[in-house]
Amino acid sequence: MANIKDVAKKAGVSVTTVSRVINNRGYIGKETRRKVEEAMAAIDYSPNQIARALQRSQSYIIGIIVPDSGHPFFAELIKNIEMYAYKSNYKLLVCNSLDEAEKETNYISMLKENRVDGIIMCSQTLNVEEYKKVNLPIVSFDRIISNDIPYVTSDNFHGGELATEHLINKGCKKLLHVSGPLNLDVLPNRRADAFKLTCMKYNIPFHIVEGEFSRQAFSYYPEDFIEEKVAEQLSEYDGVFCSNDILAYAIYIHALKQNIKVPEQLKIIGYDHNQFTKFLQNPKLTTINQPADKLGKAICSNLIKMIENEDNDVNNTIVDVEFIQGETT
Amino acid sequence: MANIKDVAKKAGVSVTTVSRVINNRGYIGKETRRKVEEAMAAIDYSPNQIARALQRSQSYIIGIIVPDSGHPFFAELIKNIEMYAYKSNYKLLVCNSLDEAEKETNYISMLKENRVDGIIMCSQTLNVEEYKKVNLPIVSFDRIISNDIPYVTSDNFHGGELATEHLINKGCKKLLHVSGPLNLDVLPNRRADAFKLTCMKYNIPFHIVEGEFSRQAFSYYPEDFIEEKVAEQLSEYDGVFCSNDILAYAIYIHALKQNIKVPEQLKIIGYDHNQFTKFLQNPKLTTINQPADKLGKAICSNLIKMIENEDNDVNNTIVDVEFIQGETT
Repeated sequence: MANIKDVAKKAGVSVTTVSRVINNRGYIGKETRRKVEEAMAAIDYSPNQIARALQRSQSYIIGIIVPDSGHPFFAELIKNIEMYAYKSNYKLLVCNSLDEAEKETNYISMLKENRVDGIIMCSQTLNVEEYKKVNLPIVSFDRIISNDIPYVTSDNFHGGELATEHLINKGCKKLLHVSGPLNLDVLPNRRADAFKLTCMKYNIPFHIVEGEFSRQAFSYYPEDFIEEKVAEQLSEYDGVFCSNDILAYAIYIHALKQNIKVPEQLKIIGYDHNQFTKFLQNPKLTTINQPADKLGKAICSNLIKMIENEDNDVNNTIVDVEFIQGETT
Repeated sequence: MANIKDVAKKAGVSVTTVSRVINNRGYIGKETRRKVEEAMAAIDYSPNQIARALQRSQSYIIGIIVPDSGHPFFAELIKNIEMYAYKSNYKLLVCNSLDEAEKETNYISMLKENRVDGIIMCSQTLNVEEYKKVNLPIVSFDRIISNDIPYVTSDNFHGGELATEHLINKGCKKLLHVSGPLNLDVLPNRRADAFKLTCMKYNIPFHIVEGEFSRQAFSYYPEDFIEEKVAEQLSEYDGVFCSNDILAYAIYIHALKQNIKVPEQLKIIGYDHNQFTKFLQNPKLTTINQPADKLGKAICSNLIKMIENEDNDVNNTIVDVEFIQGETT
């Protein structure tokens, strides 16, 4: 009896395309639809089979758990993932953990109950063991969970090197890094490693101020963090590399208020090049671009491959970063 | 035979709380869980009934269609809606229409196929008749669709009045408004109506430049729109009210490049007070705040009321706006 693969072969299109025509999902050109329908008729692909195909236990829903979907970086990432998922007939359930372990646990249960086909894990408050128990295809963003769970990340180490070397090349003699929270072993901490090693390589004195989880992940008002943890010692440094653009801009504003001239007296470089930074014109921040479009596409396509079992050996993806010259260095 | 309402009554809690305990969804305190479980045992509420309750054709999934989930305003709105939905055990499917009618139509079909319990409609490219055919609970954001479909919006007319009167009170003699696209009858166009009527009331000469849909809804780089449609005539005006903050900031940047002093020579006021504006410090934009938290809560709670049939007469909700004094007026 003919199956969906036979239809695809006959019509000269992919199985996904046939599935789209059957389910009337996603965009299908008129010509393609006609070819698929003719192929279905030609090989007598019957409605019963369609019904059976529909009964497959696939929901075509992907869940994504982020610390904060409103954060400029995650908002852009989610948009890119959703647009990519749409092309493959998948829908995206968005969950905000607010970096609370209990919410993250609840969301994982909820997503399993709702029979999502897979989970994108961008929130990282649980221990690695918790994720291993999930028993669904998972792609992890920015964290190595286990050998079975592939991750997608930007080239954090290279980004940290680029940023630190840029400050040194611009003549900085004493450097500060405002990192993310270092207590969890997540990949963005490679930015701090690279900062440290690059400073040591060039014999540049340095210091690292550790970010705080709750403030780092979804606070749009990091001014008080800067005031409390960074302000007093800032005059000792002539260059600062921040692990995200929001903090970098907050340091710029602090410098402005303190009449510290940027970039003459203090050079500032961020990380992300998120929507906020792209739109910000006065000043344009010098930063490291981790491209949300490429990250989103890699996350989504790797997860769909796992779900559809096309590829049992899904690899980790490390997306290139890019130095962006702005006006703060 | 005992039902879920009997359990709720016996335990002295709401039906929603009992449902959460049964489905193990959302946060339930230990004491509450104990009370519900004791009540279930006391009145012999059997697992069969639980199974039947679970078989109800409710998915506890809400779909939201927005022009662009990455846009600062919608990103914040979605976050607020999702957080509110979570408290009531609902999950949120996010869809980006990019203001394309075809994508919007496809998404509506996809959401229906996925048995969502209701739809939040923030994208407005289709004709009113299309939405009436959906046959699911809908809450519309910023548009009057029909008497059966409640809407949530900010007090756009009052916001337009506040903005225009502020410019006039600051001494402006000739005013410009950059509106949204006026070809569709959506509620944000009341901002332009208020601008016009307020100028007429005070005998202030004025002009309106109409925004463009594709550029308005999800462009973060509206500089070229400003260059093409606004720049040449800008010197004729001493005050401009923009229908969103992104455009207001783009005009500020244009003025900066042209050595037009803000606010001395040109006063600028926006609308939204979105995350971008809240975080932007240099300069702080004068704007009208349409609070994403209150809008999100109203949208979500109105839709859940419709889904759960608690209230057949769900009213429209108009959320108050607030004037925010920044440094651009």
